[in-house]
Amino acid sequence: MVHTVSATSTLTPQDLADALTALRERPPLVQCLTNVVVAGWTANVLLAVGAAPAMVDNPHESGDFAAIAGGVLVNLGTPYDDTAHAMHLAVADAKLAGTPWVLDPVAAGALAWRTSLAQQLLREARPAIVRGNASEILALAGGAGGRGVESVDSPEAAAQVAMVLADQQQSVVAVSGPTDHITDGRRMVRLTNGHPWLTRVTGGGCALGALMAAFAAVVPDAVVAAAAATATLTVAADSAARQSRGPGSFAVALLDELTLIEPADLAERARIS
Amino acid sequence: MVHTVSATSTLTPQDLADALTALRERPPLVQCLTNVVVAGWTANVLLAVGAAPAMVDNPHESGDFAAIAGGVLVNLGTPYDDTAHAMHLAVADAKLAGTPWVLDPVAAGALAWRTSLAQQLLREARPAIVRGNASEILALAGGAGGRGVESVDSPEAAAQVAMVLADQQQSVVAVSGPTDHITDGRRMVRLTNGHPWLTRVTGGGCALGALMAAFAAVVPDAVVAAAAATATLTVAADSAARQSRGPGSFAVALLDELTLIEPADLAERARIS
Amino acid sequence: MVHTVSATSTLTPQDLADALTALRERPPLVQCLTNVVVAGWTANVLLAVGAAPAMVDNPHESGDFAAIAGGVLVNLGTPYDDTAHAMHLAVADAKLAGTPWVLDPVAAGALAWRTSLAQQLLREARPAIVRGNASEILALAGGAGGRGVESVDSPEAAAQVAMVLADQQQSVVAVSGPTDHITDGRRMVRLTNGHPWLTRVTGGGCALGALMAAFAAVVPDAVVAAAAATATLTVAADSAARQSRGPGSFAVALLDELTLIEPADLAERARIS
Repeated sequence: MVHTVSATSTLTPQDLADALTALRERPPLVQCLTNVVVAGWTANVLLAVGAAPAMVDNPHESGDFAAIAGGVLVNLGTPYDDTAHAMHLAVADAKLAGTPWVLDPVAAGALAWRTSLAQQLLREARPAIVRGNASEILALAGGAGGRGVESVDSPEAAAQVAMVLADQQQSVVAVSGPTDHITDGRRMVRLTNGHPWLTRVTGGGCALGALMAAFAAVVPDAVVAAAAATATLTVAADSAARQSRGPGSFAVALLDELTLIEPADLAERARIS
Repeated sequence: MVHTVSATSTLTPQDLADALTALRERPPLVQCLTNVVVAGWTANVLLAVGAAPAMVDNPHESGDFAAIAGGVLVNLGTPYDDTAHAMHLAVADAKLAGTPWVLDPVAAGALAWRTSLAQQLLREARPAIVRGNASEILALAGGAGGRGVESVDSPEAAAQVAMVLADQQQSVVAVSGPTDHITDGRRMVRLTNGHPWLTRVTGGGCALGALMAAFAAVVPDAVVAAAAATATLTVAADSAARQSRGPGSFAVALLDELTLIEPADLAERARIS
Repeated sequence: MVHTVSATSTLTPQDLADALTALRERPPLVQCLTNVVVAGWTANVLLAVGAAPAMVDNPHESGDFAAIAGGVLVNLGTPYDDTAHAMHLAVADAKLAGTPWVLDPVAAGALAWRTSLAQQLLREARPAIVRGNASEILALAGGAGGRGVESVDSPEAAAQVAMVLADQQQSVVAVSGPTDHITDGRRMVRLTNGHPWLTRVTGGGCALGALMAAFAAVVPDAVVAAAAATATLTVAADSAARQSRGPGSFAVALLDELTLIEPADLAERARIS
């Protein structure tokens, strides 16, 4: 099933600006079940933008908390038996409570155990958003049947893969790359802000998944939530890169810019198509 | 049992300065059983101020190490079965060896399992200091009987709750907020340095708990230890905020200032009452 | 068996420069089984220098990944039952696949369980490099028989200990300190770049171990790999210290400098003997 990607965005930069306004007015509580590498960084990104992170990832508490959180991030960067157990419970309670959750299937396709874990979680509860790079999204699309998408070596191929997985899961799928693609299987949003240094700081993508969970907590349309998160991070990255000497100063400036960025900045500077 | 908070501080800024001199002259070995989100940040805060952190939080080693550490931090930010087990063993050996330990009951009251864990640890061994925000302290005070303190929506209410828990536990209790309250149930110290950006960096409070364990290792009076830790962090934060654009540069500057701060700075700038 | 350290370096600064050129031309995939305190920092150091970190430390995946990684770091900073299990599996598969691995025995000698773990791992598979401070290396050398080296209170004693362990393990041994010593039991390389602030940032040594795994992936001679990693980190630290006010800004500048450093900088500035 090869899609012809004819869908075009109906989103405007002002839609993204409005989403940031909503986040600032009603700071969401974002539960993160994420990896030990980026846990502190992710919390700092959420705090910087104005959200309230809660890293509740043990199986005794993850389900109960998912029921009261505004959004939930499940990131498979460093899963262990204990935290994987917590993930199953979190998505089950998120489903019951109607809490939107985001799946970030780090390294899916490259490592067997977590690929299987990602597939199980997708079967247990529909995520609002699945966010990954092209090969991770391909692994999940292919893993559920492997119909027609076999490589992701072009932006157009990445867009196709995203639409396949969005169709399969009835979720919004966001594929990160030089061009970010976001689709619900019908609409396709492309964003082209950002800087290569985002790939020289660990957790650039992981932070984006967390921001998507934050926006999904305050914006009902998950395409808008995913696009607003992407634009907020990448427009802030544009600003941060201009004042940085390398990835160390870039990461610091990025946190500053996530606090300083205003809805009007998104309206003016988000490159969306 | 509603206290009338008539107790006033007998501490002077010079007492806090002397505590920092003691810490610099005899750098304490501080064992941290803390959460994965802030473990690196906490170690960096301790190193910056001149202490020696040791993040020994597995059950095979936590007890033995608590017997030789100068101070122990037990922070409930991300407890797992494995590390919770290590906490029980650490406080047991800290008690036997007379090592002062600090309990930071992150999110107590909001999450059932860790609230129960905090209460168990309090029964097993008396901490030198319990540090938290007002609602965490309220949860522990209420959890042990709930006598008369039902809300913490004013600084005075926070002070009352602190005195209740200090009485119950025979520990020093420190309640963090715009005004920091520290009490042993008789004396009440109020400190008003600090900056709102401390709440926009993950681990501001967690770092404060770690600093309290460091000062408790070198200062016999736990009220002085808790107040010196609070003043060191918040006076450094005052300096850091003046050179920062946002929470990213603030966190970096805070580490610098924790190294640069001298006892004379506390004597001159700590706002204590 | 007390060695007379007569061995001298046959390495030149240009050898180190060539190693950095190799790393930049063929960015290695470095699997890190490391501690929760420095996991993010370590990943950022590897990304900054141009390597690709992968923190795969669960027992379901660690072995398979060690077979495909370019180099593996095993760091004992915060071992748990789960991750220790993963370490055994990783070194077993690294051995089978011929993947070079680096052991960083954090706190060996001071804590019994991890000392035993380090000794087991050394028996299971020969590491390319063992990196530690003098007392950690002494603990491993003595633990394997304790022949003649009983203190490490001088650079010369540290060099002796390194040669003893290198002989025992048939591995390269790197002892970090104001002077860094690297030996395979025959050759002895001394490096004297660096700055005391490297000891005021958590994970200075841990990052060095990770860089050794990165260089070991691209340079066949493990003495060269260990020396190139040491020179890259410490020459970058020299630059970073000149633009820093304290350990916070130093850590940020160090990441920038690890990206900016060029092979020619090593050729010009590495102090090797």
